[in-house]
Amino acid sequence: MLFITYRKECDLAQHYHLRGRFWIESPQGTFLGQGRVLLLERVQELGSISAAARSMKMSYRQAWGLISQMNSHSPEPLVLSSTGGQGGGGAQLTHVGKRAIQLYHEVLIDFEAFLSQRAQTLKL
Amino acid sequence: MLFITYRKECDLAQHYHLRGRFWIESPQGTFLGQGRVLLLERVQELGSISAAARSMKMSYRQAWGLISQMNSHSPEPLVLSSTGGQGGGGAQLTHVGKRAIQLYHEVLIDFEAFLSQRAQTLKL
Repeated sequence: MLFITYRKECDLAQHYHLRGRFWIESPQGTFLGQGRVLLLERVQELGSISAAARSMKMSYRQAWGLISQMNSHSPEPLVLSSTGGQGGGGAQLTHVGKRAIQLYHEVLIDFEAFLSQRAQTLKL
Repeated sequence: MLFITYRKECDLAQHYHLRGRFWIESPQGTFLGQGRVLLLERVQELGSISAAARSMKMSYRQAWGLISQMNSHSPEPLVLSSTGGQGGGGAQLTHVGKRAIQLYHEVLIDFEAFLSQRAQTLKL
């Protein structure tokens, strides 16, 4: 008696998705990622680093550290803060800061298009 | 007196990279990601879930949980284990398990090609 085992290639594309994350790195390390861009957006919206930090349940110190890193990894600062210090002073995005948010979203659109297109041909 | 401020668009492409991660999701959650694929590779290499777990400084329980999830999110299991239990029994990859590793690396190649190509046009 002959048994023929027949294995149909399984097409995952119907039910499986590709998901992912990306970030932009400078030679010194991470420059822009999802969390940093959200922080920039909150600074733009709230006009203050401490308010932005609070809205993200992040310490002022941590937010300031991230902003200071972004500023130093860029040819021009992304955020300018006046007087500064916890609670006091305001902060605003520079032209480069606003453009960084836009750039991130431009790459995000292409990134999601890639994942969604590539997911159409997942076969196990 | 007239000052003209001229801002040259800053071309990040020379010095900045795009980096990222991706994973394959089934409707029930994560199916395959970097860590899971490494675990499958170690099972294939070492012939045992507990040895694979040890090599990744992961508990047997955690490794078994991941493998059990992958098996249940797939139309056919990726790993078959004989007898099983901590220390005892062997494990081996099925055809689907081997194919899953291959699929992940195929997507990885395309993913990295996308990131590297997209990074060529990063402008602040």
